[in-house]
Amino acid sequence: MPTEHTYKQFDAELEAVRANVLKMGGLVEEQITNAIEALVSGDMDLAERVDASDHSVNALEVSIDEDCTHIIARRQPTASDLRMVMMVVKTITDLERIGDEAAKIARMARLIHQAERISLPRFSEVKYMGELVLDMLRKALDSFARLDATKAVEIARQDQSVDEEFRLNLRHLITYMMEDPRTISVFIDILFVTKAIERMGDHAKNMSEYVVYMVKGKDVRHTSLEEIEKEVL
Amino acid sequence: MPTEHTYKQFDAELEAVRANVLKMGGLVEEQITNAIEALVSGDMDLAERVDASDHSVNALEVSIDEDCTHIIARRQPTASDLRMVMMVVKTITDLERIGDEAAKIARMARLIHQAERISLPRFSEVKYMGELVLDMLRKALDSFARLDATKAVEIARQDQSVDEEFRLNLRHLITYMMEDPRTISVFIDILFVTKAIERMGDHAKNMSEYVVYMVKGKDVRHTSLEEIEKEVL
Repeated sequence: MPTEHTYKQFDAELEAVRANVLKMGGLVEEQITNAIEALVSGDMDLAERVDASDHSVNALEVSIDEDCTHIIARRQPTASDLRMVMMVVKTITDLERIGDEAAKIARMARLIHQAERISLPRFSEVKYMGELVLDMLRKALDSFARLDATKAVEIARQDQSVDEEFRLNLRHLITYMMEDPRTISVFIDILFVTKAIERMGDHAKNMSEYVVYMVKGKDVRHTSLEEIEKEVL
Repeated sequence: MPTEHTYKQFDAELEAVRANVLKMGGLVEEQITNAIEALVSGDMDLAERVDASDHSVNALEVSIDEDCTHIIARRQPTASDLRMVMMVVKTITDLERIGDEAAKIARMARLIHQAERISLPRFSEVKYMGELVLDMLRKALDSFARLDATKAVEIARQDQSVDEEFRLNLRHLITYMMEDPRTISVFIDILFVTKAIERMGDHAKNMSEYVVYMVKGKDVRHTSLEEIEKEVL
């Protein structure tokens, strides 16, 4: 039987893992900010920094994953403790993929600013989408830290806004391309940037759904906004 | 202490879960085939079928996930048994996302064939990429079924081919768009199709890396092709 001592060790280990997830989340937030700023300002040092922290993010994913497997093997958690560990395993997969998308944006920033001089747009839509997604990610990390499922609805709603922004932006880009076909190549790179941001939103939404599962024991993936609402409010 | 009886139950439960993963994999393979055929032939019944099986794929993900949590909670597996369960949890996430990409292709197939009559390309590049990715997925599922890590190198190499095909296709699409700007909108939809296929390749590669981790105990995510090669050959 586990003793009180074992429980305390388990709690401490789990707390360490959770702290690492938040650290990883902080790095990924920074990656998003830097990648979009690199695109907007053309500051390629920022793009480099995104790549540099990609290694740290990947290393954190691998090490948190190992910690989780060790915790399960040694502490044999059940019920909500086990759900918590499984939530961590899933959360870091999405976090890492948000980091990947940020790295893609940094790569696009390089391509776009190295391209033949055409007059670049002001990227106000990209910035706006980026802010929306950063806010979603912060809320998802906050829900994770506090085990607070109520934000899932808000995040799901924001995800819809991001998707709408993406479609709107796509229409604008197509208009620009039709007006001046020489810009097609650069605008397609910008399209990939907005696509990457849109995917970041999907991942943040996934993260918030894992928190709902953790707290409510109910799997709300693949359900409608209304069903998530019913579950958490 | 676990008795022989418990071991047998554990093995049976794990076997059932693995069979379900392969079932899910079979559904996802079918989704890819149908989605690409819907695009190439314009047969919208096939596109409908992709959507219909998306529900089954999602439901399987949720139920396999639950089975895994139950197995861990009740059987408290350690070492390679635990690694196996964790591999399943990760594998089904990627499988489900391949299914999502197939559903996106089906949606694009609808948009493309409903669009104003322009002469559509023969989609030979899309078909070729689709076949490459289907082959990767089949190999990944086969590696999973046999716990054979050696295919990971081949899959990683194929993933590079898919990425190259994607870039090549992108260049072709840009050329078409520049020649006739009225086609931009449709060709961007086709671009999203090739992007979706490219992402399927990434997911299949992830799946093969989990098998390496399971069999070799070594995490080869975020490493180079050479390192994977060293590990499995």
